[in-house]
Amino acid sequence: MGVNSNRVEDFSSQETTLRITTESIVPGMEIHNVCLPPKKTTLQKLKQRLGEIFFPDDPLYRFKNQTWCKKLLLGLQFLFPIFQWGPEYSLRLLRSDIISGLTIASLAIPQGISYAKLANLPPIVGLYSSFVPPLIYSILGSSRHLGVGPVSIASLVMGSMLSETVSPHDEPILYLKLAFTATFFAGLFQASLGFLRLGFVIDFLSKATLVGFMAGAAVIVSLQQLKGLLGIVHFTTKMQFIPVISSVFNHRDEWSWQTIVVGVSFLVFLLTSRHIIFNGLTQSMKRPKLFWVSAAAPLTSVILSTILVLCFKLKTHKISIIGYLPKGLNPPSANMLSFSGPDLALAIKTGIVTGILSLTEGIAVGRTFAALKNYQVDGNKEMMAIGLMNMAGSCSSCYVTTGSFSRSAVNYNAGAQTAVSNIIMATAVLVTLLFLMPLFYYTPNVILGAIIVTAVIGLIDYQAAYRLWKVDKLDFLACMCSFFGVLFISVPSGLGIAVGVSVFKILLHVTRPNTLIMGNIRGTNVYQCLGRYKEASRIPSFLVLAIESPIYFANSTYLQERILRWIREEEDWIKANNEGALKCVILDMTAVTAIDTSGIDLVCELRKMLEKRSFQLVLANPVGSVMEKLHQSKTLDSFGLNGIYLTVGEAVADISALWKSQP
Amino acid sequence: MGVNSNRVEDFSSQETTLRITTESIVPGMEIHNVCLPPKKTTLQKLKQRLGEIFFPDDPLYRFKNQTWCKKLLLGLQFLFPIFQWGPEYSLRLLRSDIISGLTIASLAIPQGISYAKLANLPPIVGLYSSFVPPLIYSILGSSRHLGVGPVSIASLVMGSMLSETVSPHDEPILYLKLAFTATFFAGLFQASLGFLRLGFVIDFLSKATLVGFMAGAAVIVSLQQLKGLLGIVHFTTKMQFIPVISSVFNHRDEWSWQTIVVGVSFLVFLLTSRHIIFNGLTQSMKRPKLFWVSAAAPLTSVILSTILVLCFKLKTHKISIIGYLPKGLNPPSANMLSFSGPDLALAIKTGIVTGILSLTEGIAVGRTFAALKNYQVDGNKEMMAIGLMNMAGSCSSCYVTTGSFSRSAVNYNAGAQTAVSNIIMATAVLVTLLFLMPLFYYTPNVILGAIIVTAVIGLIDYQAAYRLWKVDKLDFLACMCSFFGVLFISVPSGLGIAVGVSVFKILLHVTRPNTLIMGNIRGTNVYQCLGRYKEASRIPSFLVLAIESPIYFANSTYLQERILRWIREEEDWIKANNEGALKCVILDMTAVTAIDTSGIDLVCELRKMLEKRSFQLVLANPVGSVMEKLHQSKTLDSFGLNGIYLTVGEAVADISALWKSQP
Repeated sequence: MGVNSNRVEDFSSQETTLRITTESIVPGMEIHNVCLPPKKTTLQKLKQRLGEIFFPDDPLYRFKNQTWCKKLLLGLQFLFPIFQWGPEYSLRLLRSDIISGLTIASLAIPQGISYAKLANLPPIVGLYSSFVPPLIYSILGSSRHLGVGPVSIASLVMGSMLSETVSPHDEPILYLKLAFTATFFAGLFQASLGFLRLGFVIDFLSKATLVGFMAGAAVIVSLQQLKGLLGIVHFTTKMQFIPVISSVFNHRDEWSWQTIVVGVSFLVFLLTSRHIIFNGLTQSMKRPKLFWVSAAAPLTSVILSTILVLCFKLKTHKISIIGYLPKGLNPPSANMLSFSGPDLALAIKTGIVTGILSLTEGIAVGRTFAALKNYQVDGNKEMMAIGLMNMAGSCSSCYVTTGSFSRSAVNYNAGAQTAVSNIIMATAVLVTLLFLMPLFYYTPNVILGAIIVTAVIGLIDYQAAYRLWKVDKLDFLACMCSFFGVLFISVPSGLGIAVGVSVFKILLHVTRPNTLIMGNIRGTNVYQCLGRYKEASRIPSFLVLAIESPIYFANSTYLQERILRWIREEEDWIKANNEGALKCVILDMTAVTAIDTSGIDLVCELRKMLEKRSFQLVLANPVGSVMEKLHQSKTLDSFGLNGIYLTVGEAVADISALWKSQP
Repeated sequence: MGVNSNRVEDFSSQETTLRITTESIVPGMEIHNVCLPPKKTTLQKLKQRLGEIFFPDDPLYRFKNQTWCKKLLLGLQFLFPIFQWGPEYSLRLLRSDIISGLTIASLAIPQGISYAKLANLPPIVGLYSSFVPPLIYSILGSSRHLGVGPVSIASLVMGSMLSETVSPHDEPILYLKLAFTATFFAGLFQASLGFLRLGFVIDFLSKATLVGFMAGAAVIVSLQQLKGLLGIVHFTTKMQFIPVISSVFNHRDEWSWQTIVVGVSFLVFLLTSRHIIFNGLTQSMKRPKLFWVSAAAPLTSVILSTILVLCFKLKTHKISIIGYLPKGLNPPSANMLSFSGPDLALAIKTGIVTGILSLTEGIAVGRTFAALKNYQVDGNKEMMAIGLMNMAGSCSSCYVTTGSFSRSAVNYNAGAQTAVSNIIMATAVLVTLLFLMPLFYYTPNVILGAIIVTAVIGLIDYQAAYRLWKVDKLDFLACMCSFFGVLFISVPSGLGIAVGVSVFKILLHVTRPNTLIMGNIRGTNVYQCLGRYKEASRIPSFLVLAIESPIYFANSTYLQERILRWIREEEDWIKANNEGALKCVILDMTAVTAIDTSGIDLVCELRKMLEKRSFQLVLANPVGSVMEKLHQSKTLDSFGLNGIYLTVGEAVADISALWKSQP
C-alpha cells in the first residue's frame, strides 16, 4: 500500500489538480488522479443546465462586446431579418427574385386551390393563404429560400380532424370558423414554442416517424381523391382506410367515365412531369435544370382542362366544376375566431397537431436549403416567424401555412436570392385575386384531385423506409406504426403511437444497456471489446467490464444481475482453462455519462458483495458528473485508495504492481 | 496519403482483424484499425437482443452439461425451491425456525387485524391472509427470510382505491367481492410479469419515487387513523389530504377523551418500542439484539388494552371494540370472484397498482436479506411465487399479501434459517383462528389505529429524501411529485406523475447531452475534459469533442447546433490567442453507445458542412453497434481513410504526421 501512498486522493478538500507519481512501478506508466469537476453551487449548475436546455445556440453571442448603437442595430436585425439583407439589396438580386417569384406563383395558384379543397375549405381560402402569410414571413423569416403557403400534410390533417366532427357541407360556416380558430391556435402554439425556446419538442417527431406518417397520409388522401377522379357525389368524410375504400366501391353507380378519362389523362401528364424531376417530393431533384416543367405543369393542366371544359360546354353536367369564386382581397376574419363553445377543444387539438406538423416541414425545409447555401437558420426564430404569420393569417381568412417543400424547391431552382421572391409571389396572387378569379369558373374539380394526388404521392418515400429497415429495425417499427396507425386509426393516434415507439426505443436502450468484456490490445494501453477485436487479450486475474449506458433506476437491477453473471461466467472460464483466480473487477465507466441515486446504491452494493467474495472493485474513468455524485454521496470515501483510476490501463498496472509488492 | 496506405480499411469485405502499421510516423505510436463487430444475421441479433431483454440472468445455465436425471432434479428444484433445502433440513434448523416462526406470529396476528382494517376489510380477513399465502410461499419462494403477509402500502392503496367507488360500510359484500377480485388480478399480474420475464417493469418505480410515495401514503393513513384514535364515528372515506383533515375537525363533537387517552398512551408505548430498534421502517435496525421488544410490542398492546377494557367494562360504550370474530379456517372465496359487471375495471386497476407495489416491496425485501446472507433471489421466480400465492389467496378469503419488511426483519433477527419459519407462523395463526378468536372480542379498535400509525410512520424516510436532495435534484423532484401527488390527488396519479418525472429525466439527459472539449494529458495518450483536468492542454489545429450520449432523433438537431457552436467558439478563441488555424475536428464517440438513422444523418451532414469550410471530421473509437450502422448506411465509405481511428491519440498522431508529410 505504501507504494503509491503519495497518490492519496484528497477528496475532502476537493482539489482538482493532478498529481503524478514519480515512483511508479511499471516503467513508463504514470498513475494519474481522477479529478472532481470544478466546484459549483446548485444555482450555477442550474443556470448552466437551463442554458444548455433553452439556449444551446447561445443566441446573444453576437451582442457581446459591442457598442450600444451597434447592439440596437443587431437587435433590430435579430427581430426583423429583413434589415440584415435589406440594405444590400440590389437590382440584380431583384431580377432573380422576380423570376423565381413569378415561377412559384404559377405553382402556388393551382396548389392553393387544391390544398384548400384537401382541407375541405372553399378554394378561395387557399389563394388568400398564399397572399398574407408570405408577406409576413418575408419580414420576419430568416430563410432566404423558403416558399411560404399551404402544404399538403397540414391541409389534409386539418381536413380530416375537423370533418370527423363537423361536416364541411352541412355546416360550412361553423367549419370555417373552426378552421380559422385552429389556425390561430397553431400559430399561437408555434410562436410560443419559439418564444419559450421549446423547439426541441418537434425533434420528437423523428424522421422515421415522419416517413411512415407521410406515406400513410398520402395513401389515405390519394384514395379520398378518388371521389373527384371518379366523379362520385356521395362520399364518406371519414379518414380511415376501410370507410374510404368501401365508400369508393359502394357508389359504383356514380362513377362517370368522362370525369375518369379527363382525370386519368391529366394525372398521367402531371405524374410524368413530376417524375422527370423529383425522386420523391422529400428527396433531391434529379434534374434541377428542368425544374420549370414541374413548376408549370399544374398551371398548364388547369388552363388546358378549363379550356377543354369550356369547349365541350354541353357535357359540363357530367364533370363538376369549381364554379363561382369571389373576386377581391382577403376579408378580415378575426370575428370568426371563437374561443368558447363545445368545439374549442377540437380546434385546439387540431391547431396543435397541424402546428407541429407544419413546423416540422417548415423548419426542415428551411434548414435543408440553408445548408445548401451555407447559412444558418435559427430554429426558434423561425418558429416565432411561422407562428406569427399563422396568427396574422387566421385574422385574414387564411388557414395553416408554412414553408412548403415543393415551393421552396422550385423557388431555389428558379434562382431566388432573398425573401423578396415571396413578396413577388404574393403580388402575383394579389393580381389573380383582384382580376383573374372568373377564369377559374370552368376549371373542373377533377383536375384539382389530380394535382393533389401528384403532390401527395411523392410523399410516399419507400426508399427511405427500406433504408430504415436496413439500418435500424426499431426505427422501421416506428415508421410502420405511424403508417398503419394513420391508415387504420387516426392521424393523432398514429403519430402518438410512433412517438411512443421512438421513446420506448430510448428507454429500452437505457433499461438493457450493453456490457462488454474488455481486453488489452497488445503493446498499447488501449482496452477494447474482446469479441470485436481479435488482438485484444484478457489480463489474468482481472475482469474488465465496460458499461455502455448511464446507470439509472431503470437499469440498476439489471446491471447488478448482469455484472454478477459476467463474474460467474468468468470464473467458469477460469476453472475450465486452469487460469489464475479472479481477483479484481474493473468497471470502465467512460460511457456511464450519468448516474442517479439508484445507480449509486448499485455501485455501493456491488462493492460490498464483491468484497464479501474477496474481489476488489475498481472504477476506471468516471465522468465529471458521476464523480461528483459519488463524492456527494460519500461513496468515493468507501472506494478510497486503489478504487478509482483514470484509465483501465493505469488501474491494471498499479494494482498488479501492488500485488507483486505484497505477495 | 501513402504514409499509411497499408491501413486501407477493407470495410466491404467485413474483415474484423486488426492490422498494425509498421511504418508509423510518430515513434511509439502504432495506428490500429477500427473493427466492425463480428457479422451476424438479423435473426441472430434479434435472438441475442431478446435474450438480453428477457433472460439477462441466463436462468438455464445450471442445466448445461448435465445428465438427464440431474436435469430433472434441477428442474424440480428450479420450480419448487423447497427441494433445494428440504433434503438438508435438520433438527437444528427446525429449532431456529420454530423460534423465529412464533416470534413473527406474535407480530403477524395484531398486524393482520390492523392492516385488514386499513384496507377497510373485516379484521378476520387479515388473519386469513396470514395463513394460506405463507404456506404457498414456503413451497414456491426462493427467499429464506421473507416473512409473508399483508403489508401496509398494499392494504392502504387497496382501501383507498376501492372505497372511492364502493362504500365498505354500505355494501360490505360487494366491497369484499371487489377486494378478492382485485387480489386475484394482482396475483395474475404478478405471475404474468414473472412468467413473461417482464420483471423490469417494477424497476420503473425508482427508489426516489417510492420514498415520496410511502411518505405521502403514511401521512394520509396516519391522518385517517385519527378516526379510531379520536373515536370519531362519521368519517370520510376519501383519501386526499383536504377531505380527511376537514373530516377530523368537522366532527369535533364526536371526539371521545377516553379513546384519546387509551390511544395516545399505547401509541407512545409502541412508538418508543419501535424507536429503540429501527431507524425508520425501510432502514436498518439500530440494535438487532433488542428486536423482540419491537416484535412483541403490538401483541403486548393488544393484550394489555383488551384486559384494560375488560376490567373497566362499564365504560366500553365509550370505546369501540372489535366485537365478534368468527372462529374457523379460511372459507373458500372462489365464488366471490366476479369477472363481469361495472366494477371490473376498478378491480383490475386496483389489482395492478397493489400488485406492482406489493411486488416492489416483496422483491426489494427479499433481495436485501439475500444480500445479507449472500445468496441469490431470482426476481422473475419470486414474482411467480408471489403471484401464485395471491391467486390462491383470492380463492381462500385472503387479500393482497407479499414479503413484508417488518416481518422479514423480525424473522431474520429471530434467526430464521429457511421458509419453514413461515410454516410455523401459519400454524400459529391456524391455532389462533381455530381457538383464540373470542379473546379478541374486547380488543379496542383504537389499539389497531395505534398499531397502524406506528407501522406507517416508519415509512416516512425524511433522511432518504434529504440524501436525494443532496445527490440528485431531479430524483428529489420525482420524490416530491409522488409525495404531493399521493397527498393531494390520488395514489395512481401520484405514482404516474412520479414515473413520468423519472422517465422525463432520462429523456432530458438524452435530449440535451453533454459535449465536452478535450485536451491531451501531458506525456500520455489520454484525452480528458479541459475544464476538469488542469493538466490537459489543447492540441493546436485540432478540436477534440466528446459526445456523452447516444445520438438519436431527439438530440441530433441539438448536437449539430452545439458542435457548430463549439467550432465557432474555438475559432473565436484562436483569433483572440493568435493560434494556428483549426483544421480538424475529432469526435470522441466512446460514450455514443447507440445511433439511429437521424444520428447517422447528423454525422453525414456534419461531415459535409465541415468539408465545405475545409475542416476534416474524424470519429474516434465508435462502439460496435455504431460502427455497424455506419457501415450499413454506407456512411463509413464517405469517411474512408483518415476518417475513423481507434483512439483520439492515434487520430491526432496520424493526421498531424500526414500534414507534415504534405505541407
